[in-house]
Amino acid sequence: MKTLILEALRSTDGYLSGQELSERFSVSRTAIWKKIRQLQEEGYQIRAVSKRGYKLVSSPDSVSDEELSSLIKTEWVGKTVKYYPSVTSTNQIAKQLAEEGAPEGMLVVTDEQTAGKGRSGRTWETPRGETIAMTLILRPKVPPERISMVTLVAGMAVAEGIRNLTGLDAGIKWPNDVVIGGKKISGILTEMTTDMESVSYIVVGIGINTGEASFPEELADKATSLFMELPRRERDKVRRSELIAEIMSRFEYFYSLFTRTGDLSLLKDSYEGMLVNRGRTVRVLSPGCEYDGTAEGITDMGELLVRRECGTVEKVYAGEVSVRGMLGYV
Amino acid sequence: MKTLILEALRSTDGYLSGQELSERFSVSRTAIWKKIRQLQEEGYQIRAVSKRGYKLVSSPDSVSDEELSSLIKTEWVGKTVKYYPSVTSTNQIAKQLAEEGAPEGMLVVTDEQTAGKGRSGRTWETPRGETIAMTLILRPKVPPERISMVTLVAGMAVAEGIRNLTGLDAGIKWPNDVVIGGKKISGILTEMTTDMESVSYIVVGIGINTGEASFPEELADKATSLFMELPRRERDKVRRSELIAEIMSRFEYFYSLFTRTGDLSLLKDSYEGMLVNRGRTVRVLSPGCEYDGTAEGITDMGELLVRRECGTVEKVYAGEVSVRGMLGYV
Repeated sequence: MKTLILEALRSTDGYLSGQELSERFSVSRTAIWKKIRQLQEEGYQIRAVSKRGYKLVSSPDSVSDEELSSLIKTEWVGKTVKYYPSVTSTNQIAKQLAEEGAPEGMLVVTDEQTAGKGRSGRTWETPRGETIAMTLILRPKVPPERISMVTLVAGMAVAEGIRNLTGLDAGIKWPNDVVIGGKKISGILTEMTTDMESVSYIVVGIGINTGEASFPEELADKATSLFMELPRRERDKVRRSELIAEIMSRFEYFYSLFTRTGDLSLLKDSYEGMLVNRGRTVRVLSPGCEYDGTAEGITDMGELLVRRECGTVEKVYAGEVSVRGMLGYV
Repeated sequence: MKTLILEALRSTDGYLSGQELSERFSVSRTAIWKKIRQLQEEGYQIRAVSKRGYKLVSSPDSVSDEELSSLIKTEWVGKTVKYYPSVTSTNQIAKQLAEEGAPEGMLVVTDEQTAGKGRSGRTWETPRGETIAMTLILRPKVPPERISMVTLVAGMAVAEGIRNLTGLDAGIKWPNDVVIGGKKISGILTEMTTDMESVSYIVVGIGINTGEASFPEELADKATSLFMELPRRERDKVRRSELIAEIMSRFEYFYSLFTRTGDLSLLKDSYEGMLVNRGRTVRVLSPGCEYDGTAEGITDMGELLVRRECGTVEKVYAGEVSVRGMLGYV
């Protein structure tokens, strides 16, 4: 009901009367009034003017399921939202929900992770209310060896979501870090559960630095946040829920192009347009072999194409090597 | 405590007095007597003779954690047992426990699965108390693409466990079905959770038909059980817990040889000794390509080597093809 009221208030610039709302949702005007009160307590500024009705003046920086559901306009990605004030990690909760039969496209979101994870078991800090930490549950009908491409698709959705909503020049550092001005603003951790023949489900965890005003010294030249990148007057305008809604929308579109072919052939050009490594020197660090080259783009399977000084072009697989460029380590 | 009492009673052929037991475990004789009563209620025949003490006459066909823990003599595989009277599937429970940090080697076991799973989403029937349904939690430090070999290792442990305990001529149908007389007695479902770079954990689900007296018509010529294979007088002698303990022991040994090299090089000869397809004609059914050949053995990575009539030897990967032989479909 709160989701519906929020949606209704957002769909107009003017006022909506209690009478109108009560008729639309077939509940009493008192019931409407009670929900409005609850929303106000949650931080929504809703102006109530007699004979005119209610008007949404501003919304808090909330990522509650009501807030998100009132904003996410997709067919299936993020249509079911599970919000938790605090969790170990959204990936862990998502895996449990997936085991219990959660529908494809379910979005798990939180305000705080107590045991957030990065790739290869590294930790990922999620200070309370200052970041986006969320996980999508998907059940792709592609072989296990193609799943790493979904991470690239998610990177595209995050980069374009940030661009569309803030105008900031977000790009992708291959394979899937999202960076602004050479500093990392988002990381993605995809985990797959498979019986080796087919994929049971995957969880795509997305962390985005939004409200951090600074980072510890050892991260200061590697990490950034929306707060740090945005001009002062725009900082308050960007709400996490709106960014999440935009990312869900972009993800649904990019993912549909991925599943149409099972590879990145329809996405390669867009991906390369966002690829900050492109045309730049990278150093490929694979076990027992290290070389410099120029990143030229990606293959349909998501490998990085690196032209070596001797002229040969190598395919570099995500997960098997590190690529060092002007931007520190991937 | 019940586990310790069972272990003590099993370690002797004679009687153990309540005094001895109470001293050994530093509890009162009344406490010992109470636990003995509980064990008797659970189906353990324990004879109590005054001035001599207690003697274990027979054990029920139980797979409780006390029963299993008193029998499993390994370093780490199956040292922690979680028994559930009924679950959806032991793999599902094991994955949840692994997410919550369950120790490596934990064994999840049940008397009944309400949603047992086979490979590629097929169902696996687990009639109450008539089968073994169990799952091991492992955290192998090998790359994701090597995990399918663990399934072959588990197949070896099951086949040799059955051989050692019953004398039945159990063999392996590549890659990991365990068969007796051409009929399937055990299936294994390994599921992996990975971030594509490293393996978080795997669960190795093992189903063994033990007590079934018959199968539905459509399975009658494909499936068998220990009950159906054993001579009448030996049927009651085989208890599930003893078979599980033997399999844990064999698995620990075979798995240590796998992790020593990260492949099957130290296990290939034993595996080929159990391979019922060996030297037999198989038909390889891969998408867009079907051919006959003779199974010659396996590679260090677990692929089946098939010599075609034209003389070439093909490597066949598990999961990508079906192999049809004298034994129906794998």
